[in-house]
Amino acid sequence: MTEIEQRRRDVAARLPELKADALLVTSPANVRYLSGYNGSNGMLLMLPGETHFFTDPRYALVTKSIPGKSHVIKGPLTAGVVKIFKQKRLRKIGFESAWTHYEDFAKLKETLPLGASLVPVGRIVEERRMIKSDDEIALIRQSVRINSDALANVLKRLRPGVTERDIAAEIDFQQKKLGAEKSSFDTIVAAGPNSARPHAHPSARRVGANELLLIDMGTFLEGYASDMTRVVHMGAPPKKILEMYRAVLEAQLAGIAAVRAGTTAGKVDGATRAVLKTHKLDREFVHSTGHGLGLEIHELPRIGKKDKTRLQAGMAITIEPGVYVEGLAGIRIEDTVLVTKNGCEVLTPTSKDFIRI
Amino acid sequence: MTEIEQRRRDVAARLPELKADALLVTSPANVRYLSGYNGSNGMLLMLPGETHFFTDPRYALVTKSIPGKSHVIKGPLTAGVVKIFKQKRLRKIGFESAWTHYEDFAKLKETLPLGASLVPVGRIVEERRMIKSDDEIALIRQSVRINSDALANVLKRLRPGVTERDIAAEIDFQQKKLGAEKSSFDTIVAAGPNSARPHAHPSARRVGANELLLIDMGTFLEGYASDMTRVVHMGAPPKKILEMYRAVLEAQLAGIAAVRAGTTAGKVDGATRAVLKTHKLDREFVHSTGHGLGLEIHELPRIGKKDKTRLQAGMAITIEPGVYVEGLAGIRIEDTVLVTKNGCEVLTPTSKDFIRI
Repeated sequence: MTEIEQRRRDVAARLPELKADALLVTSPANVRYLSGYNGSNGMLLMLPGETHFFTDPRYALVTKSIPGKSHVIKGPLTAGVVKIFKQKRLRKIGFESAWTHYEDFAKLKETLPLGASLVPVGRIVEERRMIKSDDEIALIRQSVRINSDALANVLKRLRPGVTERDIAAEIDFQQKKLGAEKSSFDTIVAAGPNSARPHAHPSARRVGANELLLIDMGTFLEGYASDMTRVVHMGAPPKKILEMYRAVLEAQLAGIAAVRAGTTAGKVDGATRAVLKTHKLDREFVHSTGHGLGLEIHELPRIGKKDKTRLQAGMAITIEPGVYVEGLAGIRIEDTVLVTKNGCEVLTPTSKDFIRI
Repeated sequence: MTEIEQRRRDVAARLPELKADALLVTSPANVRYLSGYNGSNGMLLMLPGETHFFTDPRYALVTKSIPGKSHVIKGPLTAGVVKIFKQKRLRKIGFESAWTHYEDFAKLKETLPLGASLVPVGRIVEERRMIKSDDEIALIRQSVRINSDALANVLKRLRPGVTERDIAAEIDFQQKKLGAEKSSFDTIVAAGPNSARPHAHPSARRVGANELLLIDMGTFLEGYASDMTRVVHMGAPPKKILEMYRAVLEAQLAGIAAVRAGTTAGKVDGATRAVLKTHKLDREFVHSTGHGLGLEIHELPRIGKKDKTRLQAGMAITIEPGVYVEGLAGIRIEDTVLVTKNGCEVLTPTSKDFIRI
């Protein structure tokens, strides 16, 4: 059985518990996961034991490489989908309610055969995607390595006086030169007090001498994401900054130490938060400890306070505690890690020594 | 009255025809348009004569610069929104059905006060966004200029033997060096037969001597998009390619000549299509003639066969006919143009001579 067939079988096996005869998959990442299709207009209809793929004539050639039945549709794909609803006499059709826009839901509902209805289902494909296969792990590993190499290339040539924007442009350029498709999110480069804003956009601000620089970056490699944050300092950091850095690093290492199959996401989050509390910095830690990643930069599981998801071997997640002191600085340290049976493997090879430039 | 106040007044004026007491705005581009807010978590509730803005504590400082009432909410913003529903005794609340996920709709519906209901409304903010103000036009103009300058910088140094991916990386880098935030879509660089696929991704393919190269690129400048396609040729193009190029250019110029306030989008599309028909290339023109652009790269109006939208002065649109011959080449020529009372202004300054390198 191929990997895609295995994934399809696992997802279809959940149809009975959802009380659905079929599942309509429309999220592009989910469609890609279950078919290999990577274009801009594709849908899947999954029934027990069979899968139908729908796309438009631009992608007619692509259908040859997609397992199962393919339908090339002129106009809205849902017209072809509804035909199969009728042909297979489907009554309860699951749809991805977290992804489907209300307008599309309403349009589809209007064209349903008599007696058929749409059943909202949650993130069942996303749940299957949490556990990565060996091939997926290999791509994430490569994505992480390219990302770290790109940072190394940029740091080599980094000097005070360059703007945040130019550093971000150089990072994105290096990622692509090293073979990545593109950044997995808008690269964050935040100098001095800008670093205290967790979602800063790179600005025309020049990095000052004796200033801190926070860099949060990731790439996509053959569809798979990486994610890393590092903080560097121009010259020797002042004591206050150094203490903050050490506290965040201690928290990040505690988070990594807490990761293993069988524990909950909430416990990993608690581990980083507890360390920051001992440093009286827990109130400055304003986000969650991490998130899954794969075909999307943010995937399940969320590694937050109240998250009860049990970690399993094969999950790829980030561990990224951070503290933000308005007007002074923000420090975040982030690795991509792979959950294993007895712990985890830190995939990110970049050193976490406080780099001075 | 400020520009934002004017926009809000125009949108709120449409509430009666929608039979709604209020409109909940959740599309990020629409929220930005009606508030100036550019973060990742904001909503607006518009009532006749008053507007409420909702965000989370990370953006508390930002609210000072947003006109109207602001509410800083811990947790899901909809909790704060529903409070205003109650306080104002709203009964019919419009929501953006093209943007709202079914899951979010269902969650919100569950928390509604008794007697209140949600009314799906179409793209009324997007319709207002079609007509650009002078300030918006100035930003689009600047975005277009940066985009053209970036292409010029790359073409200066372009030689056969470089990969599609490296050219795309260099384009994205140049855009940012010139002050743009980022590309407004994934840059397309397609060499030789790859150009025949309208949605090619840049690959590791090297541009051959005597080969054609199609480049489709755009930037965001302070939120505003530009979009341009040019085709260049390594060495002298063969006769067949030259003829295709001339046909597409003739079609593109006919499209531009057809643009003026009062005509319909469909007539502009018809103008490019008619020219390609005289060259027996209309069947190879597999997409529509263009689209609006602004805070998003694809906005209303669509410039397609059946589109009856009347063009109005102040609309920013693309004109981009293309023909694609499998195995041979694809040629597309695209400018960003501004609709004026008596015609249009082509904003894109880049020459449309068939560039030879």
